[in-house]
Amino acid sequence: MNKWIACLIIGLSLICCDTSSKEKLISKSPASKSESFGLVIHGGAGTILKENMTDSLEMAYRDKLEEAIRAGHKVLADGGTSMKAVTTSINILENSPLFNAGKGAVFTHEGTNELDASVMDGHTLNAGAIAGVTTVKNPIDLALAVMNNSEHVMLSAKGAEKFATEQGIEIVDPSYFYTDRRFKSLQSILEKEKKALEKNQSTPISYLDPFINDYKYGTVGCAALDKFGNLAAGTSTGGMTNKKYNRIGDAPIIGAGTYANNASCAVSSTGWGEYFIRGMVAHDIAAMMEYKEVTLQDAAQEVIQQKLKNLGGTGGIVSIDKNGNVAMEFNTAGMYRAHMNAEGKLIIKIYENE
Amino acid sequence: MNKWIACLIIGLSLICCDTSSKEKLISKSPASKSESFGLVIHGGAGTILKENMTDSLEMAYRDKLEEAIRAGHKVLADGGTSMKAVTTSINILENSPLFNAGKGAVFTHEGTNELDASVMDGHTLNAGAIAGVTTVKNPIDLALAVMNNSEHVMLSAKGAEKFATEQGIEIVDPSYFYTDRRFKSLQSILEKEKKALEKNQSTPISYLDPFINDYKYGTVGCAALDKFGNLAAGTSTGGMTNKKYNRIGDAPIIGAGTYANNASCAVSSTGWGEYFIRGMVAHDIAAMMEYKEVTLQDAAQEVIQQKLKNLGGTGGIVSIDKNGNVAMEFNTAGMYRAHMNAEGKLIIKIYENE
Repeated sequence: MNKWIACLIIGLSLICCDTSSKEKLISKSPASKSESFGLVIHGGAGTILKENMTDSLEMAYRDKLEEAIRAGHKVLADGGTSMKAVTTSINILENSPLFNAGKGAVFTHEGTNELDASVMDGHTLNAGAIAGVTTVKNPIDLALAVMNNSEHVMLSAKGAEKFATEQGIEIVDPSYFYTDRRFKSLQSILEKEKKALEKNQSTPISYLDPFINDYKYGTVGCAALDKFGNLAAGTSTGGMTNKKYNRIGDAPIIGAGTYANNASCAVSSTGWGEYFIRGMVAHDIAAMMEYKEVTLQDAAQEVIQQKLKNLGGTGGIVSIDKNGNVAMEFNTAGMYRAHMNAEGKLIIKIYENE
Repeated sequence: MNKWIACLIIGLSLICCDTSSKEKLISKSPASKSESFGLVIHGGAGTILKENMTDSLEMAYRDKLEEAIRAGHKVLADGGTSMKAVTTSINILENSPLFNAGKGAVFTHEGTNELDASVMDGHTLNAGAIAGVTTVKNPIDLALAVMNNSEHVMLSAKGAEKFATEQGIEIVDPSYFYTDRRFKSLQSILEKEKKALEKNQSTPISYLDPFINDYKYGTVGCAALDKFGNLAAGTSTGGMTNKKYNRIGDAPIIGAGTYANNASCAVSSTGWGEYFIRGMVAHDIAAMMEYKEVTLQDAAQEVIQQKLKNLGGTGGIVSIDKNGNVAMEFNTAGMYRAHMNAEGKLIIKIYENE
């Protein structure tokens, strides 16, 4: 009998010592079901604190997030594609001055607005991205057109605008992107930069946003799963206030700002873009799920709370996997975010603890 | 005694049924040793066939590859960093008209030369990238300056050129990049495009290169491991002949064209850039090594010969891992490539079967 106990101990220790197989057993999920559709959106992450927010402003954010997620959800409920849901939700956020994308885009150092966006289709692994456009009302629509109607994945600047015109994408005068608040943000940073220069101090990377209290990274994004079991993701941004040298952030970088793969999950990022590129955040979460066979939540947590943090990066992601499981993970004080599942259960959150 | 045998069988079956732990056992490599330095370079992949090559041209390619790899090897042998070896080797390839990078860059649809490049440091996960510059003699040097001296990872177009000037990077007149051969390539494609349009045929993506016989993707790149056990990678390109709309390919995209991580490997890609972005080729190889614990060769083979091929993409990669193992994997007829290890063993190859 003692021998059997010894045998059991050996057997158990063989299982326990191998963490890979353990994760495999834990994370095994049921096959994708057509009814498990859903979507998740974000409107930027950063130091978003309740004490700096008025009730009416908070209400405005929650209302707009709800409008965007309900619109995307309706697309999915009506049998539309995940990509259509993604662009529908993002269009609403782009058209609001509340978020740093489309209408509400921040200003560059030169006082212009340069917009970036990308989309990816998890079924075909097709992708489209644009960087540095100044006249396209809804950059996410142009990213989609690049994916669908060009032989390229990524277009930039004047060339991307030329393509937009040829595609009949809505063009606006650059002044469309002028908002008092964003312009004042730039002036405030330029003033600080000037003072720092006068004192021979190094100029900090400053992206002051009046709605995300200190460092800020207002980007909008969406990840969706449709009734056909297909995933899609998209991200749109105005980048960073006071950005220079035609900087390109993570939002238009496939694998960093946006990634979707039916084999794993769809991800949209928001945060300090440089770190999201270096960490390949969106693709890393998907790769970890696929190759280590961990759950979406475990992968998102490890990438955002450990790997990104260890690099010194801040921000977050929203993601949905092939089974409709959702992660809204961030390492900042807050992230504007919302989720709606197939049953119509709605979650809208801003701060960390709510 | 029979009970002990039963116990042994249970134990063995527990090991054998778990493929993850099996791979783990197979791929377990010795810890990184300081003597296992080395580097590997490429000068583009595509339909490179011996029957289309003269002896003298082939010799010119082999000589230039040897010059580049020996220069990088000397850096490593003398105790220099992997990043210094990468930029040293790439500078030599950039300064040669043989390769589609720097001096030999191909022409865009508009008859200009737009250069892209990126570098990544596997120790710090720092990275630098530039896209669409027209006046920078050695784009890889600018990518390095972006990594070392800017708060950003990726700069583009005029902004990147402004940064280059501020950094004292060598600026040349755009006419420096004029080579008869590349200009004739563009004219030949424009002619074909015109004829196709006249016949109402869809215009193919054509990147005819006289040295890589049909579709071509001449990019140069290097991956290196130094005596300190640190990995680095870099890639530089003129993109695709006849590219339009300020297209950005994979060369300046961290995770697609270039990736380095001391936890796994350093990779530089060359091929049809759009597919390398969609497949996140460089990061995918590294992630597969790290999360599935397979060897570099197995990961490179699966990504290039299966995943990339299934997408419809063609091209290849060169890569070195933290133990000095090297992969030079491609799914085209040829890839200009060279490898040199710590013992000074030199490999230079062009075609598939040699």
